[in-house]
Amino acid sequence: MKYIITVGREYGSGGRFIAQKLAEKLGIKFYDQELINKAAEESGISMAVFKNFDEKRDSFFASTTSMYSYDISLGQRVFLAQFDAIKKIAEQDESCVIVGRCADYVLREYPNLVSVFICAPVEQKIERAIKYYGINPAKAPNIIIKMDKKRKSYYNFYTDREWGKARTYDICINSKIGIDESVNAIVAYINGKFGEKNI
Amino acid sequence: MKYIITVGREYGSGGRFIAQKLAEKLGIKFYDQELINKAAEESGISMAVFKNFDEKRDSFFASTTSMYSYDISLGQRVFLAQFDAIKKIAEQDESCVIVGRCADYVLREYPNLVSVFICAPVEQKIERAIKYYGINPAKAPNIIIKMDKKRKSYYNFYTDREWGKARTYDICINSKIGIDESVNAIVAYINGKFGEKNI
Repeated sequence: MKYIITVGREYGSGGRFIAQKLAEKLGIKFYDQELINKAAEESGISMAVFKNFDEKRDSFFASTTSMYSYDISLGQRVFLAQFDAIKKIAEQDESCVIVGRCADYVLREYPNLVSVFICAPVEQKIERAIKYYGINPAKAPNIIIKMDKKRKSYYNFYTDREWGKARTYDICINSKIGIDESVNAIVAYINGKFGEKNI
Repeated sequence: MKYIITVGREYGSGGRFIAQKLAEKLGIKFYDQELINKAAEESGISMAVFKNFDEKRDSFFASTTSMYSYDISLGQRVFLAQFDAIKKIAEQDESCVIVGRCADYVLREYPNLVSVFICAPVEQKIERAIKYYGINPAKAPNIIIKMDKKRKSYYNFYTDREWGKARTYDICINSKIGIDESVNAIVAYINGKFGEKNI
């Protein structure tokens, strides 16, 4: 049976890694940067622009100042290109895991969807950001707050839902129990929804 | 090993029922109305007062008008009596499930704690409220909104956290997959945290 798992996540929560492990465990495809590439290829927008705008809604605020006045249409074009790419991925014959980019909202009418959100305690997010993203330890707490604000702002701007709120998703996991343990709890939910034989 | 599960829930989400089933499955005690009784017995506040104030924070707003001016201290006395009762329950030698009443916040320093939140789609909450609480179908949508506002207001007033937000809890489940399936996903998280042999 074909199904799609979307994963939203706090910055530094390990959500991307959990999504990847989940895809491996279920033996299905994983889309993150790959998704952006796909969107970029088909829309004709250059990769550099995608990298710059990817989930950075706050650049739209800057657009009220003249210097960035081209941002509005470009930011929205990036969103729409990603929106289309997600829809195309969902139309394929394969099950998959998609990280971020409002995929849960884009695919809200899709029946075999499980939307996941991953959060983590602040200390653990700081630790991960320093370890895996090479963030300056002194700046890490502020960077984490800023990144989560960006994601929230991006999500809440493009959808009629609230980022990080339980009722927006099917299952939310605090990854403090560990990566594999988080994956197992998500798999239990997926099994419950589709039946173990179908995934 | 002794552990405590707290369950916060939207009104009509089936959260109380999930908590009860969870306690049965784990073979541990379940506290809901029983908890209020316990608090009432030991604080000397009458049962009628507890029933009236239980999780109704909005009565505090009314307290600015003269008629209800006794509410502030009484409402807070009820909260404190429940707070103490929850602490006493946590000190017992038995594992348990506790529903509502900011138990996750009261026991935030307790190491073997798993805090759960249950939400559900509005249509399903309306259906449950009509079926199980005998709510008038025409009034059900408004009652559900009001009840959730009360719970949110009560929780946000007495804690430094946000009710219904993923990062407030360890695991949040949308009960639309079903009661037993929700229980199973929570058990998977608990297994992941404590190890299957310890629960």
